[in-house]
Amino acid sequence: MYHEIQIRPRFSETDANGHINNTVPAVWFEEGRATLVREIAGVRPSIIIARFAIDFVREMTFGHPVTIRTGIARFGEKSFAQRQESWQRGQLCARAETVECGWDSVNKRTVRISDEIRNALAPYMFEDQPVEPAMNVT
Amino acid sequence: MYHEIQIRPRFSETDANGHINNTVPAVWFEEGRATLVREIAGVRPSIIIARFAIDFVREMTFGHPVTIRTGIARFGEKSFAQRQESWQRGQLCARAETVECGWDSVNKRTVRISDEIRNALAPYMFEDQPVEPAMNVT
Amino acid sequence: MYHEIQIRPRFSETDANGHINNTVPAVWFEEGRATLVREIAGVRPSIIIARFAIDFVREMTFGHPVTIRTGIARFGEKSFAQRQESWQRGQLCARAETVECGWDSVNKRTVRISDEIRNALAPYMFEDQPVEPAMNVT
Amino acid sequence: MYHEIQIRPRFSETDANGHINNTVPAVWFEEGRATLVREIAGVRPSIIIARFAIDFVREMTFGHPVTIRTGIARFGEKSFAQRQESWQRGQLCARAETVECGWDSVNKRTVRISDEIRNALAPYMFEDQPVEPAMNVT
Repeated sequence: MYHEIQIRPRFSETDANGHINNTVPAVWFEEGRATLVREIAGVRPSIIIARFAIDFVREMTFGHPVTIRTGIARFGEKSFAQRQESWQRGQLCARAETVECGWDSVNKRTVRISDEIRNALAPYMFEDQPVEPAMNVT
Repeated sequence: MYHEIQIRPRFSETDANGHINNTVPAVWFEEGRATLVREIAGVRPSIIIARFAIDFVREMTFGHPVTIRTGIARFGEKSFAQRQESWQRGQLCARAETVECGWDSVNKRTVRISDEIRNALAPYMFEDQPVEPAMNVT
Repeated sequence: MYHEIQIRPRFSETDANGHINNTVPAVWFEEGRATLVREIAGVRPSIIIARFAIDFVREMTFGHPVTIRTGIARFGEKSFAQRQESWQRGQLCARAETVECGWDSVNKRTVRISDEIRNALAPYMFEDQPVEPAMNVT
Repeated sequence: MYHEIQIRPRFSETDANGHINNTVPAVWFEEGRATLVREIAGVRPSIIIARFAIDFVREMTFGHPVTIRTGIARFGEKSFAQRQESWQRGQLCARAETVECGWDSVNKRTVRISDEIRNALAPYMFEDQPVEPAMNVT
């Protein structure tokens, strides 16, 4: 299962190549993750981002809404990963995975993801086909 | 070998957590890649970004310069990968790898990386230790 | 009369002061102007921005939607001005005025605003009270 | 007198019109103001921005450094104004004025600019010709 939000690209998010700059989808994905965790699952875990990876499949452009799908890819002991997709005009345009770690901000170290967080996020496993390389490049 | 540029973080690049927002280093890394390829190696390949992955090691803050190191990770047939590091106050803060594909913008398809591009970039292999996971998370 | 759009602030738009960075509302206002002119009035004038001024009345924060109101402030011979307001949680937070000039992109010079553009935008005069200084500062 | 900083435009700061997006110079001007006040004058006043106005004179592009000139336009009782210019390739491209108010963050109200702040900033009066409208538009 995944949660969807709608994004309205801003003109300032385009670049001189005429499309959405490659650094911008990360901003939209951040909104998708925050919405799933805080508003939909309703929890406010203390987390830090350990890793973010994005595959670009098709360019995105200004003037058409973008749908961001967000779900959980997997749980670790001290982390969980969110999997996301970006769609525009009916086509998959980007895929991303973000690894987030539980964080003890007082002692500045990673900590276990609590059962409360796990249980709240568990219903949102993104169970679709696995993420594959964006392009067949060798 | 790697090429270094200096970045001066902008206050608008911080977020309400008090540090540099996680989506910002991608903007700095884009500057590092463009500088290495266009200004240092002196070539202007027609390329598209297929994949970008970033490991966050330490938070970065406003008020201190950031050094971006950029080199080549490897060459493929139709692609090459750039490896990058972000340093602030003498500490490694983020690592990134970007896969870029040769692009035929007329026929809209990936193409081979030309020998001219390969030869120009070959001296800049980032020969350090391999990129490892940012944190020991399971 | 004015046209309203809803903006969902992005976390990356906050800064280390804990609120929306002062450079961000300009991005939202750009969306409001483009929507009024292109989607609501349905015209696509060739224009350039000559001047943008913004008064900050109250800080804006992440986590609450923002309403952008956009209307026409006045018409000149070669320009028109759009007047805008930003509202969050029922309170006026910022006011802006943008002067846009008709632009001949071939000859690179300002030109008259056509009657077609004038007529399309005329119904959207922002007829409220005039824009006053944001704060009583001397 | 004015203080100068050099800005290296980022590719993500361009837009689909092929030049620097109109919302971007505000980010650069913010860097110029912070540098003048905090690093050059060496004070850290508690201030909020009451007003920002920018005149666009010429477009700016990626690939060439930008010089930001920053000085003091005038002092008020509870505020001061900074005047700024943006130059690229030897040409004036934008002018801005920012009004900043002394701020009591505990009582959430504007306060007098202290003599210490006044004295530290006084040497940096931007004494050039006054700011005039960017274009002769009526």
